[in-house]
Amino acid sequence: MAPKHPDAEALSPTVIIGTGLIGASIGCALTEAGVDVRLRDRYRSHAVVAAGVGAGSVEAPMATKVRLVVVAVPPAVVAPTVAQAIKHYRNATVTDVASVKQPILADLEAMGTDLRRYVGSHPMAGSELSGPLTARPRLFVDRTWVLAEGTGSAEAVETAEKLVGICGARLVRRAPADHDRAVAETSHVPQIMSSLTAARLADVPPEDLRLAGQGVRDVTRIANSDPALWRQIISGNRAEISTQLKAIRDDLDRLIAGLDDIKTIGELIARGRSGVAALPGKHGRPASTTLEHVTVEIPDAPGALARLFVDIMGQGVNVEDLSIEHGYDRDVGYLSITVEAEQAQDLREAMGEKGWTLRS
Amino acid sequence: MAPKHPDAEALSPTVIIGTGLIGASIGCALTEAGVDVRLRDRYRSHAVVAAGVGAGSVEAPMATKVRLVVVAVPPAVVAPTVAQAIKHYRNATVTDVASVKQPILADLEAMGTDLRRYVGSHPMAGSELSGPLTARPRLFVDRTWVLAEGTGSAEAVETAEKLVGICGARLVRRAPADHDRAVAETSHVPQIMSSLTAARLADVPPEDLRLAGQGVRDVTRIANSDPALWRQIISGNRAEISTQLKAIRDDLDRLIAGLDDIKTIGELIARGRSGVAALPGKHGRPASTTLEHVTVEIPDAPGALARLFVDIMGQGVNVEDLSIEHGYDRDVGYLSITVEAEQAQDLREAMGEKGWTLRS
Repeated sequence: MAPKHPDAEALSPTVIIGTGLIGASIGCALTEAGVDVRLRDRYRSHAVVAAGVGAGSVEAPMATKVRLVVVAVPPAVVAPTVAQAIKHYRNATVTDVASVKQPILADLEAMGTDLRRYVGSHPMAGSELSGPLTARPRLFVDRTWVLAEGTGSAEAVETAEKLVGICGARLVRRAPADHDRAVAETSHVPQIMSSLTAARLADVPPEDLRLAGQGVRDVTRIANSDPALWRQIISGNRAEISTQLKAIRDDLDRLIAGLDDIKTIGELIARGRSGVAALPGKHGRPASTTLEHVTVEIPDAPGALARLFVDIMGQGVNVEDLSIEHGYDRDVGYLSITVEAEQAQDLREAMGEKGWTLRS
Repeated sequence: MAPKHPDAEALSPTVIIGTGLIGASIGCALTEAGVDVRLRDRYRSHAVVAAGVGAGSVEAPMATKVRLVVVAVPPAVVAPTVAQAIKHYRNATVTDVASVKQPILADLEAMGTDLRRYVGSHPMAGSELSGPLTARPRLFVDRTWVLAEGTGSAEAVETAEKLVGICGARLVRRAPADHDRAVAETSHVPQIMSSLTAARLADVPPEDLRLAGQGVRDVTRIANSDPALWRQIISGNRAEISTQLKAIRDDLDRLIAGLDDIKTIGELIARGRSGVAALPGKHGRPASTTLEHVTVEIPDAPGALARLFVDIMGQGVNVEDLSIEHGYDRDVGYLSITVEAEQAQDLREAMGEKGWTLRS
């Protein structure tokens, strides 16, 4: 049993309402830290499953003793659930985990809710998984967790900060409207663009898709997400998303009209490159650092991949990323290793000397 | 010195016109197989560099003896270069490597070129690299290489097939118009959608980009490509691209008009999921096989990543993919291992027992 976290008492008992991936994972993180966690779900069986994976207990607490309530229900029902929790748990700080903040705040204000004990929050830990069985106590470690500036009293904010700290997340403060604009730009609109791209593929002759390479797979990867969840997320942030989609439609109209003019095409691509360069790089590194892939054939022999890793690591290069590609017709694979450009040639030579076959 | 490939004589001498990544890599593959390769480039210095990396010789051949000419020049000048090569090398099969086929064929027909010795081709080996210094003899191994059906005499097609075979690529035959539609669907339009998404990021407040996660990075990765090359590729296939972009604009208009209706949003996302599912899976596996990520913290200690690999490989799981994530503020990393869902839980347990820290 791990020692109790110094903030464990201050958060005990915590009630978690909604025991999907996010709620149950928060439950696991708090329970591991020694917080007394009580689980509630519209479907009691889900809460029981979450309790089974270590997210807390299903026993009801004494309502007046509850210090923190985490509302982790689907986006469409967050505001009424928060309002109800503020009434029911009369001394608790109430927070939510929804991916939009301004509309929830507006709904709560419209309901006349006392907002001194409400702190809006958004832990940004995406996963393609869902449900309590996939809960992980470390899901939020090193992830961004936004607290909505201007919501809650100083005391309520302090309680929410303790939650973020115990979960190991990186705290970022943004005003609700700024948060919603930023997640539209960096998450909701890219999600829609991925879906628009993928939706066209549903209508094309299957033999055309045999020409698909890695690029279209990258662009459409996030289109493979949960429709029930995403239609609520998008609907919840629709005002901001609408503004941004109209700007993209203008860009698209300009491109369609200008396809005969190579300069119009070039300008769009150049602007796209500027956008990619503006994204913060991994590891705090400027995104402009030149990286190269070194691609090595993985022989079809037991243990080959492990031996390959040992040889790569023996070179002392800083591996930025890795991926495995599979050949189409033969049962062969390639390991692609991403390193800084100036290390790439040395790595290629060293791997060649050790007898590995390089593709690039 | 490797033994000569059985088809080496039949292709000797081969002339490669244009010694960028693709031309020089073809030169390296043919030279390794024992083909007599002669290199030409608008800039003689490029051909000399390509010769230096093993792509062939810069000595001019006797024009009437040449068996094969590979035109690997930028898209905009392919047709005139092919026409000139057909005239100059009077007994050679001439092929190109451009990413569109129908407009080049139309240009050649308009010029009154004798097309019996022309075979359109498209080796689909993308790389973010360019220039002869990055040439690799194995660049095309297991990659798709399309030959344009209905171009060239039977003899010319046979010569082009030998080229594809020596390069180790997977031969696919498509009619020129079908090829151009398929690459618009699976490559050019996704490229434009990625650029449109990334272009918006160029205009947003920098602090908003701190909320960017892996999703937007996946969607915009290919937007970081060469504007000079891509504006030519898109311009060359603009008729087909225009048709497809208009269909996307219609979908986008419908979405913007229907953002207040959760059903409209849900329908787009559901169609996107169908599109992703229609893409052929890696390894011939149906794309619907459920994969899961197991994420392990990489301790900040020398050799930790190599030890981690050895422990993973010791579990005998079939590793579908790998990636490395870096934490934001701490110098910490995570290795994400993609495996089939039914192997994920066993791997998690085994890694936990060996003392590794799991995030998911």
